[in-house]
Amino acid sequence: MENSRFQELLKQKTAYVNDVLEQYFPVEEGLQKTVLEAMNYSVRVGGKRLRPIFLWESFLLCGGRTEEKAYAEPFMAALEMIHTYSLVHDDLPAMDNDVLRRGKPTTWYQYGEATGILAGDGLLNYAFETVAKELARIAAGDCGGTVPGEERLKRAVLALEVLSRKAGVYGMIGGQTVDLEAEGKGASVSEEELLFIHKNKTAALIQAPMMIGAILAGAGESQVALLESCACHIGLAFQIQDDILDVVGDTGELGKTVGSDAQNDKQTYVRLKGLEQAEREVETLSLEAVRILDSFEGEHEFLKELVMQLIGRRK
Amino acid sequence: MENSRFQELLKQKTAYVNDVLEQYFPVEEGLQKTVLEAMNYSVRVGGKRLRPIFLWESFLLCGGRTEEKAYAEPFMAALEMIHTYSLVHDDLPAMDNDVLRRGKPTTWYQYGEATGILAGDGLLNYAFETVAKELARIAAGDCGGTVPGEERLKRAVLALEVLSRKAGVYGMIGGQTVDLEAEGKGASVSEEELLFIHKNKTAALIQAPMMIGAILAGAGESQVALLESCACHIGLAFQIQDDILDVVGDTGELGKTVGSDAQNDKQTYVRLKGLEQAEREVETLSLEAVRILDSFEGEHEFLKELVMQLIGRRK
Repeated sequence: MENSRFQELLKQKTAYVNDVLEQYFPVEEGLQKTVLEAMNYSVRVGGKRLRPIFLWESFLLCGGRTEEKAYAEPFMAALEMIHTYSLVHDDLPAMDNDVLRRGKPTTWYQYGEATGILAGDGLLNYAFETVAKELARIAAGDCGGTVPGEERLKRAVLALEVLSRKAGVYGMIGGQTVDLEAEGKGASVSEEELLFIHKNKTAALIQAPMMIGAILAGAGESQVALLESCACHIGLAFQIQDDILDVVGDTGELGKTVGSDAQNDKQTYVRLKGLEQAEREVETLSLEAVRILDSFEGEHEFLKELVMQLIGRRK
Repeated sequence: MENSRFQELLKQKTAYVNDVLEQYFPVEEGLQKTVLEAMNYSVRVGGKRLRPIFLWESFLLCGGRTEEKAYAEPFMAALEMIHTYSLVHDDLPAMDNDVLRRGKPTTWYQYGEATGILAGDGLLNYAFETVAKELARIAAGDCGGTVPGEERLKRAVLALEVLSRKAGVYGMIGGQTVDLEAEGKGASVSEEELLFIHKNKTAALIQAPMMIGAILAGAGESQVALLESCACHIGLAFQIQDDILDVVGDTGELGKTVGSDAQNDKQTYVRLKGLEQAEREVETLSLEAVRILDSFEGEHEFLKELVMQLIGRRK
């Protein structure tokens, strides 16, 4: 796929996701307006919307049809809410103590620390509330399309199970916990610990959308397992590339200072294995991820290009 | 019901809930062990377990059978996890800054502030994860009893919807938000705002278990609505009684200093309406709650006594 074509598609798909998100935002009214504003502010600050895009592309890859997008959209919104809440809480003074994100004040810095905590809680809860409403809608028989309601409900239940597992203590929160404990431990962080962090803190929230997209489209267990594995490779490759860029990247292109890992005595894959081995690992993981995607018959040119750009990125 | 009999039953039921909770705790193993420990610590610190008891009693009230307790138990555990996470986050330095709860160090004080945030997030997520696993179990056809699987799944989906709504920005979190903004505003907090706080911060998490118990037992919409209303009365009466006790209570019996509301310039129902009117309101709300319970044919002597003791309490 030509890069200009890819960029055009990426722009279209990001705009689509942003439209979807707007539909699922809580309305900023009522006495509790402040927390609703803070939640929407946090999501609107922006981002690459990668997780909803991954969900949508996996849905299409596994035979989901554009006319049935109503089944994917609540989960796309829920994924971005969960990703956002994790950033909101990560930015808190007791965590990373960040006052800026994407050039704008972080949620707690804008609304105060207590509201920052509540807005994060609100987003996490609202993600499940959004999915619960969707399940209730399907259970009430309010579903068109060619797939019977009972089968629709089963798929949505499985998708919810994956979402809750990958976001929780056996996924993202688990990874955050180990990452927190690794802080300041420098070189004594083991390879096992480092891989655990990357697999859970990063890869789990790529696995969730890819698996959910497939499940909602009606993919079988083996296909879902393949995409779970593919997403794990993508997440790991992305993080190792991140470590590499911190050593060999260009500050101007990256938009952040290189060498910060070394300065913070942070354990990285490069530090553990050396630059050459790290680069080989990214190569291997990327090839494996693409090999899995290519084993699917469905359309995946855009998804493949997205993966390659994410991993091969210079910024 | 005689008080000694009630106390005996309450003890039995609390022990039952504690057994259920133990079954649903995540196992404290794996690299992310710290967050799992902090989560279990938070729940084990104890409490009256009122929400799971309300769920169980409403389940029985609406015809649920003891042999079918497996359908109620995941929701009982989830309710207590959500209640506990709200306390864990409430205790944080940026919120109430409490170091002790029930005589033991609060979660953040015991495990550090960052782990306190993650443990709260972990509990909220795990509550939904627990329910999601239950939904997946039912969807997989793994359900005995006399009720067909399809109907079981519909009930569980409705129960999830209620849980997520009452815990979120249109329930508990909404109430917390308004409560936060009322701090330091003293007498300028309106009756509307005060009632919003009590209805959402307190009553919503009594409504959730009573509604869910009924839904899981197969109650119809009108019965669920009656219990939603009943729980609202209970929550409000409980909070107004709390305000009254802070004025007329006995420090020794209460186990906390009376007069703290006035000292903190906190808006209360007594301050708004006067002591006499507040006492009349508790009376009216209690009678109405009991009247609703009495309109049910099912066994509810214990539940009625529980409500009366909660509201009429001197401590």
